[in-house]
Amino acid sequence: MADKLILGVDIGGTKSAVALGNREGEIIDRRSELTLPLERSPQEALNSLTKIAKEMLKENKIEFDQLEGVGVSCGGPLDTKTGTIFAPPNLPGWVAVPVKQILEESFKIPVIVENDANATALAEWIFGAGRGARNVVFLTMGTGIGGGLILDGKLYRGTNDLAGEMGHQTLLMNGPLCGCGKRGCLEALASGPAIARLARESMMYGRHKRVVVLAGGNPEDITAKHVVDAAKEGDHFAIQILEEAGTYMGLGIANLIQILNPEIVIIGTIAVHAGDLVMNPIRSAVEEFAWKRSLEVCSIVPAELGDRSQDLAAIALVIEATNPGHKFTSSPVPLFQVRSEHLEEGFC
Amino acid sequence: MADKLILGVDIGGTKSAVALGNREGEIIDRRSELTLPLERSPQEALNSLTKIAKEMLKENKIEFDQLEGVGVSCGGPLDTKTGTIFAPPNLPGWVAVPVKQILEESFKIPVIVENDANATALAEWIFGAGRGARNVVFLTMGTGIGGGLILDGKLYRGTNDLAGEMGHQTLLMNGPLCGCGKRGCLEALASGPAIARLARESMMYGRHKRVVVLAGGNPEDITAKHVVDAAKEGDHFAIQILEEAGTYMGLGIANLIQILNPEIVIIGTIAVHAGDLVMNPIRSAVEEFAWKRSLEVCSIVPAELGDRSQDLAAIALVIEATNPGHKFTSSPVPLFQVRSEHLEEGFC
Repeated sequence: MADKLILGVDIGGTKSAVALGNREGEIIDRRSELTLPLERSPQEALNSLTKIAKEMLKENKIEFDQLEGVGVSCGGPLDTKTGTIFAPPNLPGWVAVPVKQILEESFKIPVIVENDANATALAEWIFGAGRGARNVVFLTMGTGIGGGLILDGKLYRGTNDLAGEMGHQTLLMNGPLCGCGKRGCLEALASGPAIARLARESMMYGRHKRVVVLAGGNPEDITAKHVVDAAKEGDHFAIQILEEAGTYMGLGIANLIQILNPEIVIIGTIAVHAGDLVMNPIRSAVEEFAWKRSLEVCSIVPAELGDRSQDLAAIALVIEATNPGHKFTSSPVPLFQVRSEHLEEGFC
Repeated sequence: MADKLILGVDIGGTKSAVALGNREGEIIDRRSELTLPLERSPQEALNSLTKIAKEMLKENKIEFDQLEGVGVSCGGPLDTKTGTIFAPPNLPGWVAVPVKQILEESFKIPVIVENDANATALAEWIFGAGRGARNVVFLTMGTGIGGGLILDGKLYRGTNDLAGEMGHQTLLMNGPLCGCGKRGCLEALASGPAIARLARESMMYGRHKRVVVLAGGNPEDITAKHVVDAAKEGDHFAIQILEEAGTYMGLGIANLIQILNPEIVIIGTIAVHAGDLVMNPIRSAVEEFAWKRSLEVCSIVPAELGDRSQDLAAIALVIEATNPGHKFTSSPVPLFQVRSEHLEEGFC
């Protein structure tokens, strides 16, 4: 088993990648290309990825029987049992694509398909900030707020693969409209686009202009990255916006702690980039809205895997599938310890 | 195994009971007595329950080696590993009581101690509305709002036995004060005392008086039961109050559905007594605040076990402990089907 290798496939809305790795989380080789969902069919895109993967294996002198399996991480909704992707928002035209079936026909080895939030939760648990924990809540905080749950040492998928939609808990009845069509979801209050919206709205009332300068002068071009950059320069207005978003994020996390009593909550993307500027308001809100007794066993930390996250997410799927509940030691780390400030790329 | 019997012990703030049952959920005999936490020590109360249990076994000609174990259901917080109860609000003076150790010394057979919400969740899963489901959310809706989670066919306890505190998710920042010390918890918005508070507050503004008549003329004496009774008589004011509480309950359940993607949500106590008067607003709110795709696999139903609930809760603990993940068939029932209108006693 120790010599076996794993192929990870990450299908993103912009770029897709194939990575060759092992159970220790080492990436031996990787290739990426544009996904181009509007220019070619899903079958063509998958054929192209298969070709790239086969070339990469050949160059590395790896035979197929040295592979344990293929993990595919991509946007949901999807059905993990059949490995079918149903029209993810970031892949226009990918309607009911039987990814598992197509890739198993090409590779002749088992293929696991999972949504990227669950896959990244597994990667952070196996290789990152959640190592050794039994109960892990992982949350992305980027274009959307999604997540994955490791409960009693296993990925919890729910009844039809929809568990972990933590960004779509309603925190503010009649609040701002969310991309999902509901109002007042955590995602509508604390995601990257929500942070950008807060900046644009406040700008209308003549608040401080540093954020708009960073955005090149046009308020319509403001993104969360401009707000984080301005806050890092000490801009008071930008700091306040991150405090508001962080407070809602903390409220949502406090609810998760009340419901799931996790050992660790891991937050990706903006929490990693902005560091204490967003982690501090998150922690303050969690302390206000969650019970002390639950917080005593729970740490709240930024994600650790940085730009290795997507490759390891796909690879982690095969590790989980071949050895579920592979390892945990149930050793909680102290409350609110920050384990890492590693940076990730690409947060809107 | 089929001949083995189980002893269930339910320790309540007012009454405690011992019940003799089997794995099929039949109660063969039961005895109860007042708990009297202010008048005698925990050791005295447990000695008395032990004595009652031994007499009951003797009268039924049951030897100890015919028992599989003893299940103890009581209020939390508690530590299930050591079987220690830590100062539950309803048992003044019960501070760090090693219930498991005390009862194992008396009975010489294994004792399982669990909080009553988790125990009742197990009972509804094994014997009641949750039969055959893989992912079950159980919620009480009485003096408090607590609950238990069956996830992937197993009771999920969390890191330090605090999972399932669904009543203490914050739904309204700066909302009414909750018994737990936070503000705007689901419990402060939809529990029995919250319903009574809504009735008393509205009374101050001269709203319809039927509820206060049922309470004997004094607004201070209004309980949730008076509101439910008035609503059943068609009193518009009381119906509106149940709609408000039911809407918050539905919002809290929608959040749980987004996070946990369960197959069934089972609601006890007031949901059972008030029936559609509270189930209908719950369902409307769930449809508004949860995703259709998650609701397609999820039914929302009142609890089924009625006044057998507490005995079966204690007995279910031994079934779970001796045969975890004992059975589920993963056969979701249709959305929003009401399976039963059986009544439970004692909802504040």
